[in-house]
Amino acid sequence: MSDTIFGGIEGGATHSKIALYNGLGSKLVECGGPGTNHYLTGMVECQKRIYKMVQDAKQKANLPENTTLAALGLSLSGCEDHEGNERLREGLHEAYPDLSRAYHVCSDTVGAVASALEHGGLVIIAGTGSNALLLNPDGSEGRCGGWGYILGDEGSGYWISHKAIKTCFDKEDGLTDTPYSTDLVWQLIKDHFSITDRFGLLQHCYTNFEKSFFAGLCKKLSLAASQGDGLSKWLFQQAGRDLARFVASVWPKAQAKLLEQPGGLPVVCVGSVWLSWEHLQPGFVAELATHPEIRELTLVQLKSSAAVGATYLAARLVHKDFPADYASNYEVFFTYHREKQTNGVAKFNGDVNSKAANGITNGHSKTN
Amino acid sequence: MSDTIFGGIEGGATHSKIALYNGLGSKLVECGGPGTNHYLTGMVECQKRIYKMVQDAKQKANLPENTTLAALGLSLSGCEDHEGNERLREGLHEAYPDLSRAYHVCSDTVGAVASALEHGGLVIIAGTGSNALLLNPDGSEGRCGGWGYILGDEGSGYWISHKAIKTCFDKEDGLTDTPYSTDLVWQLIKDHFSITDRFGLLQHCYTNFEKSFFAGLCKKLSLAASQGDGLSKWLFQQAGRDLARFVASVWPKAQAKLLEQPGGLPVVCVGSVWLSWEHLQPGFVAELATHPEIRELTLVQLKSSAAVGATYLAARLVHKDFPADYASNYEVFFTYHREKQTNGVAKFNGDVNSKAANGITNGHSKTN
Repeated sequence: MSDTIFGGIEGGATHSKIALYNGLGSKLVECGGPGTNHYLTGMVECQKRIYKMVQDAKQKANLPENTTLAALGLSLSGCEDHEGNERLREGLHEAYPDLSRAYHVCSDTVGAVASALEHGGLVIIAGTGSNALLLNPDGSEGRCGGWGYILGDEGSGYWISHKAIKTCFDKEDGLTDTPYSTDLVWQLIKDHFSITDRFGLLQHCYTNFEKSFFAGLCKKLSLAASQGDGLSKWLFQQAGRDLARFVASVWPKAQAKLLEQPGGLPVVCVGSVWLSWEHLQPGFVAELATHPEIRELTLVQLKSSAAVGATYLAARLVHKDFPADYASNYEVFFTYHREKQTNGVAKFNGDVNSKAANGITNGHSKTN
Repeated sequence: MSDTIFGGIEGGATHSKIALYNGLGSKLVECGGPGTNHYLTGMVECQKRIYKMVQDAKQKANLPENTTLAALGLSLSGCEDHEGNERLREGLHEAYPDLSRAYHVCSDTVGAVASALEHGGLVIIAGTGSNALLLNPDGSEGRCGGWGYILGDEGSGYWISHKAIKTCFDKEDGLTDTPYSTDLVWQLIKDHFSITDRFGLLQHCYTNFEKSFFAGLCKKLSLAASQGDGLSKWLFQQAGRDLARFVASVWPKAQAKLLEQPGGLPVVCVGSVWLSWEHLQPGFVAELATHPEIRELTLVQLKSSAAVGATYLAARLVHKDFPADYASNYEVFFTYHREKQTNGVAKFNGDVNSKAANGITNGHSKTN
């Protein structure tokens, strides 16, 4: 089995990651690549990038360049529909017949869950874009978001950046008011886009739109929030609220087995927006509090990329016994617990580890 | 003066119009052309289209093809900033030196006001996109919106179509609820885009996005509103509310001379969304009612295109006495009057023509 090679790719709008494993479950290499969302790159370019990433990874792992993978997992942003996934798979078989004998194509959300949780859970991606996917133990799914910046992306880096800009525009236009000064945020926008006035933004929105560059403003807003800027803090609270709405939206579809395990629903949090958790948290928790049905959940972050989960999925498609080490792939950073309601009034109590009086913990213990 | 030729172009995202006049103020020709928003077409393509429209119009007016215009007014969507306008003007001088001796470049909003009102007023464009511009008698301006579909377009055809789609997506995702059934609207969306499910919309939003096609759904929603569909009616009410917010946003910048004339502030309403006025009206009036400072205004629609206003502006740049016939270029379709507040409670009274008890009239009398 040591010379059987499995691969997995986590694909984002901006960046991708690839991992190669041998049949004993040992990682041979993990490295980066360009964006592989076929809605953004086009299908042919996406396939070309996948091929090139595999070839590069084989080279880095000192594998012969004509090595055919036993299975390749493609866990890509944009791979949300069966028909598109089939087109991607068939196109790869045709254009690069010796790349891999088998494929497992799924969304980046599925790969993320598969890295950390053998029996399913919820994954919420909040990077350049956003979406959520619930995977139940019986294989049934619940999903929310994932429709891109025109139709969704709530709580994502793009969304936070866009809302910052829109708030400044609307205040300047006299359309809405905000209790916060827009001075610092507007300065950050001008610096980020190298513009002097609002007209300068038009080309960044239309003629030369780059979603990832747009979303890049978010990191600067996070820093401003850390420095106490009111509008920046508010923006992340709004994002936290919307990410919690993803939880509430799929909650009714979660099987009891998922909700009743220690720590409640496991939620895999993927994407750089989660790095600003301290600023998301107030809005996230406030929104959860409005949903009495949500009793307990545990937020975890991956220590490995979803490329690992993509590999697990592809490898187990052809070898059921492929050794997958889930526990080493994540760590807990927050637990939320809400006591059963009494007299219609919601009450928070201390969490299972008694680390916080309001049922909220920031910690690093493993869940389940 | 009869052999001196002046021209004007009204440019939209989707369509444009051109008019040619002789020096006596007689219209020689008015005809259509493609979209000329240089943010959408690119600067060079925009200039090429302008040149071609002028040549076509000269041919239709039986003018020699080498006729150089005395002045050409360009009243184009996208021409909002001085720098971009200068680049357009200089580019035309360079690429087509014999096209026109002088140019007047301004936004489509300025041209629309100039068609109907010699001394200024407010124009609100609600077509594929939306924006508002106040022109004061002293030449000072107030503006609002005009930032395109990423940053604005509230109340436009794109905005209404987008909100319809987003409402259906969010309801299906369980993110928000609406008191109205989405059944009919979702059926109209599927028919308009020839899709069977939500995934089918992704290519229309991203790989093959066409704002005007997107906005084309709006006409079908208007028909559904006329047939009593609750969600469709609600969508137009929201649009009406946002268009009234444009009025409120620029109101403080309007000079007393504009507000105190008979009929109050004249508002030139441009764009096909205004054709659904009966559905916009409830939201529009409800929003105005929340602004006690707004006392009286008159909505008018143009009977000529803004190409006429563009011509007036260009012609008067070189010939102050160019004869412009403002009164024949518009008609009134609505007047709003609010009595002075007493005891902090707003009261509506009959309008000056006593056509309606609540101060709202749909009529066809001329304002000013």
